[in-house]
Amino acid sequence: MKKKALLIAAALTGLCSALPAAAQFQKPEDAVKYRKAAFTVMASHFGRIGAMAQGRIPFDGAAAAANAEVVADMSKLPYAGFVEGTSGTEKGQPKPNVWSERPKFDAAAKKMQDEVAKLAAAAKTNNLDQLKAAFGSAANSCKACHDDFRNP
Amino acid sequence: MKKKALLIAAALTGLCSALPAAAQFQKPEDAVKYRKAAFTVMASHFGRIGAMAQGRIPFDGAAAAANAEVVADMSKLPYAGFVEGTSGTEKGQPKPNVWSERPKFDAAAKKMQDEVAKLAAAAKTNNLDQLKAAFGSAANSCKACHDDFRNP
Repeated sequence: MKKKALLIAAALTGLCSALPAAAQFQKPEDAVKYRKAAFTVMASHFGRIGAMAQGRIPFDGAAAAANAEVVADMSKLPYAGFVEGTSGTEKGQPKPNVWSERPKFDAAAKKMQDEVAKLAAAAKTNNLDQLKAAFGSAANSCKACHDDFRNP
Repeated sequence: MKKKALLIAAALTGLCSALPAAAQFQKPEDAVKYRKAAFTVMASHFGRIGAMAQGRIPFDGAAAAANAEVVADMSKLPYAGFVEGTSGTEKGQPKPNVWSERPKFDAAAKKMQDEVAKLAAAAKTNNLDQLKAAFGSAANSCKACHDDFRNP
C-alpha cells in the first residue's frame, strides 16, 4: 500500500505546476535542455559585462546595467532544470554530487544569485571600479560551483 | 577614402557594446546559440501557461503570473541573435527573408512582444478566461512569425 501511495503521489506531483523542478518538464531531456539554455543566455550577458570589466570593450554604464539585470533575472531560472537522474560524465555535465550533496549545491547556487544581484546593483552606479569588483566576486561564485559540481 | 572610413566605422562598431546585434557576439555561431537558448527558455515557460490554458494541468494564478513574467522578459532577448548570414534551410532555421524583409520581421517580433506583455498583464488578474484569451493571441503571434520566417 505504501508503494501505491507513493505512485499516486508521484502522479499527482506531475500535475502540480507550482512544484519547482521535475514537475515542470515532461522528460528529463527537456529539463537538461532548459537549464543549459538558461545558462547560455546568462553567460552571454555576463560575458558582455566581463568584456567591460577586463577592458576589452569600452565601459558603457547603461549597457552594463542592462546586461546585469538580465543576468540577475536569468540566475533564478536554471536550477529548476536540475532534476534527478540527469548527471553525466562528459565535460560540462553535472556530477552526481549535485543530488547527493544537494544542500551544498543549493547554497552554491544561492551564492551566485546573491553575487549577481550585487553585480546588478553595482552596475547601476555607473562606476567601473565597482563593476569590476562585483564582476570578480560573481565570476568566483560561478567558478566555485563549477569546480565542485561540474565535470571539467 | 570612403571605403577606409567605412572600414574604420565597422571596426568601431565591433567595439560598441550598446549596438544590439552582431557586435555582441564574437562569432555568428554564438549568436545562433544565444537566440536558440533564449527561445528555448521562453518556450518552456510559455508552455507551462499553455498547459493551464488548455486544461492539462490545474490553473494556478500565481504560477501563471510568474511564468508569464519570465516569458515577457525573455521575449526581448532573442532578436539580437539574428545576425546577418545565419539563415538556413533546415527545420527550425530562419529563412533568408528575416534579413531581406527585416522591417516585416521586426514588426512580427514586436507583435509577439506586445502580445506576451498583454499575457503577463492577463496572468496577473488570476482569471483563467482572460489567461486563455491572452495565451491564444500570444500563441498566434508566435505562429504567424514562424509561418513567414522559419523553415517548417
